[in-house]
Amino acid sequence: MKLKNDLFLRACKRKPVDRTPVWIMRQAGRYLPEYRAVREKADFMTMVKTPELAAEITIQPVDIIGVDAAILFSDILVIPDAMGMNLEMHEGKGPVFPNPIRTKNDVDKLKVIDPYKELKYVLDAVELTKKELDNKVPLIGFAGSPWTLMTYMVEGKGSKNFSFVKQLIYNEPELAHQLLDKLADAVADYLSAKIEAGVNAVQIFDTWGGILAQNEFEEFSLQYITKVIDNIKRKNEPVIVFAKGVHYKLNRLAKSGADVLGLDWTMDLGKVRKKTGDKVALQGNLDPCVLYADEDKIKEEIIKVLDSYGEGSGHIFNLGHGILPDIDPEKVKALVKYVKEATAERNSK
Amino acid sequence: MKLKNDLFLRACKRKPVDRTPVWIMRQAGRYLPEYRAVREKADFMTMVKTPELAAEITIQPVDIIGVDAAILFSDILVIPDAMGMNLEMHEGKGPVFPNPIRTKNDVDKLKVIDPYKELKYVLDAVELTKKELDNKVPLIGFAGSPWTLMTYMVEGKGSKNFSFVKQLIYNEPELAHQLLDKLADAVADYLSAKIEAGVNAVQIFDTWGGILAQNEFEEFSLQYITKVIDNIKRKNEPVIVFAKGVHYKLNRLAKSGADVLGLDWTMDLGKVRKKTGDKVALQGNLDPCVLYADEDKIKEEIIKVLDSYGEGSGHIFNLGHGILPDIDPEKVKALVKYVKEATAERNSK
Repeated sequence: MKLKNDLFLRACKRKPVDRTPVWIMRQAGRYLPEYRAVREKADFMTMVKTPELAAEITIQPVDIIGVDAAILFSDILVIPDAMGMNLEMHEGKGPVFPNPIRTKNDVDKLKVIDPYKELKYVLDAVELTKKELDNKVPLIGFAGSPWTLMTYMVEGKGSKNFSFVKQLIYNEPELAHQLLDKLADAVADYLSAKIEAGVNAVQIFDTWGGILAQNEFEEFSLQYITKVIDNIKRKNEPVIVFAKGVHYKLNRLAKSGADVLGLDWTMDLGKVRKKTGDKVALQGNLDPCVLYADEDKIKEEIIKVLDSYGEGSGHIFNLGHGILPDIDPEKVKALVKYVKEATAERNSK
Repeated sequence: MKLKNDLFLRACKRKPVDRTPVWIMRQAGRYLPEYRAVREKADFMTMVKTPELAAEITIQPVDIIGVDAAILFSDILVIPDAMGMNLEMHEGKGPVFPNPIRTKNDVDKLKVIDPYKELKYVLDAVELTKKELDNKVPLIGFAGSPWTLMTYMVEGKGSKNFSFVKQLIYNEPELAHQLLDKLADAVADYLSAKIEAGVNAVQIFDTWGGILAQNEFEEFSLQYITKVIDNIKRKNEPVIVFAKGVHYKLNRLAKSGADVLGLDWTMDLGKVRKKTGDKVALQGNLDPCVLYADEDKIKEEIIKVLDSYGEGSGHIFNLGHGILPDIDPEKVKALVKYVKEATAERNSK
């Protein structure tokens, strides 16, 4: 079945588009009253693990906000959870692993997962969502990068200084590489299965890439992102890499096999576009806090992002990070509407 | 009186040096048992406000670790505290202002401070420290940038998304500018008084500059850092600006009037040196977590930092952020010793 709106996929491949596609990181989330209504009846992990609920939440922003792509409601930590780490979600404290990875024994004990078994609930959610979406817009699937997953698995909970994972890479680099390798296989298998189940694109979140020095990023993160991308079984489904805070090695990232780089709001789209020489499409990068402003200011800041990218295809409008839970949904609707109108007008000139 | 060791000051001005000077951000801190011994008898703010204790703690790392500069033990938030905000230090939670700034009335109520009155305890600490240091090494004084101070004052406590301060700049930019202007005056007066009291250099910490998009950084932070530097009364005392996470506008920062830019560990010293065209000296930038590694690895990483800067004067060795409280002081001693030896050997070639 052909997609009714394939703007997002076209822009990922830098093909001509009538207007710039737009979606929002964490668009299926707490800022929506419709999301909170579901959340009142089920806890977070139940929502993630129940295909009917995951599908319902995934589709909400397509209908309510009018985005050009859906992204499957899930969590990057379902992989370590499936490997046997028992993910706990603590209200207001974020994810916790009661037994963080600290030794070779901990790494060896991690299960090699078969996504068709341990993560079947995700694949079922993909299939159900695709059916309910009825080809209205493409569906994105996502995963954490091996480095970002390892960071959570080793720290065990939120961290300010990332002392444990840094100790691991400095003092036991071989063990770190062993774990990263294991995770790269799991992530590639998982994303391949999601694609087989029907997602039209995948995004790899390297949330913690930016805590590494430049050479360490290459050794401990980029290398494994590249391995994941190499091993994903896909036909033409684009891969997006969002490495928050990674302001360096962008040229190397652009050669990782990714079709799209997601950029946070501290980056300059135009400069990155020049640097990466149109090898990749770019996604981003409005500061999520701009949505606290009034609509005139929001429009002004949208225009700055559009101007910064400049003319031509290859831009996917998004925030530079996930939408915050206390944002007014009316402003998000206004943002999406305005990006559509402003870019359609620009493209018709 | 002439300083016995002026390597740090010479490097700040990019004059020739026999070896690279080295000091450590937060060197007068919790990782030292001698610091913790004082801390057991007095709480943090008492230590800050008692010149005898502040002087004692300031000098500890000079004697114990062998650094080439002392930095006055204090806190960037003494300024808002003196303006009437009643700084509270909560163990494990960090600084709290019970009545954060949210309205024009809050801003208007802030006292215009005279550092010779409200912050006399700092100036007394400077004089006492200078006396006790006996010109062994230079003494650095520091302050927060107006933007960073405003961030703490508006958020009121630790923040993940900085929603309140972002709301202020988007929705009430005039009020934000009014507050920043007031803070720029206070910071300049404060640093001028510290220089008059005897500090040999000053460092401005822009801890939260990096949460801003590039143009916002220029409007809300850099502009006021420049104003502070313009208004500091100084003879030849160098100004260091450390803007954590600010990977952009480095050329503009280099033209702010600063003599030295401090860089975090995600920056490449060599590339920044090329970009800023030897307009400024550079300070940094070893990842503080490298001190979790063994001594061989630490040496290896030190060499990478030195190689990255390259030959010639204008480098001050430091960490890329404050030292962490659980670091073994023996490793810090080893670091300082090794930087001294390695760079003396390189310079003699």
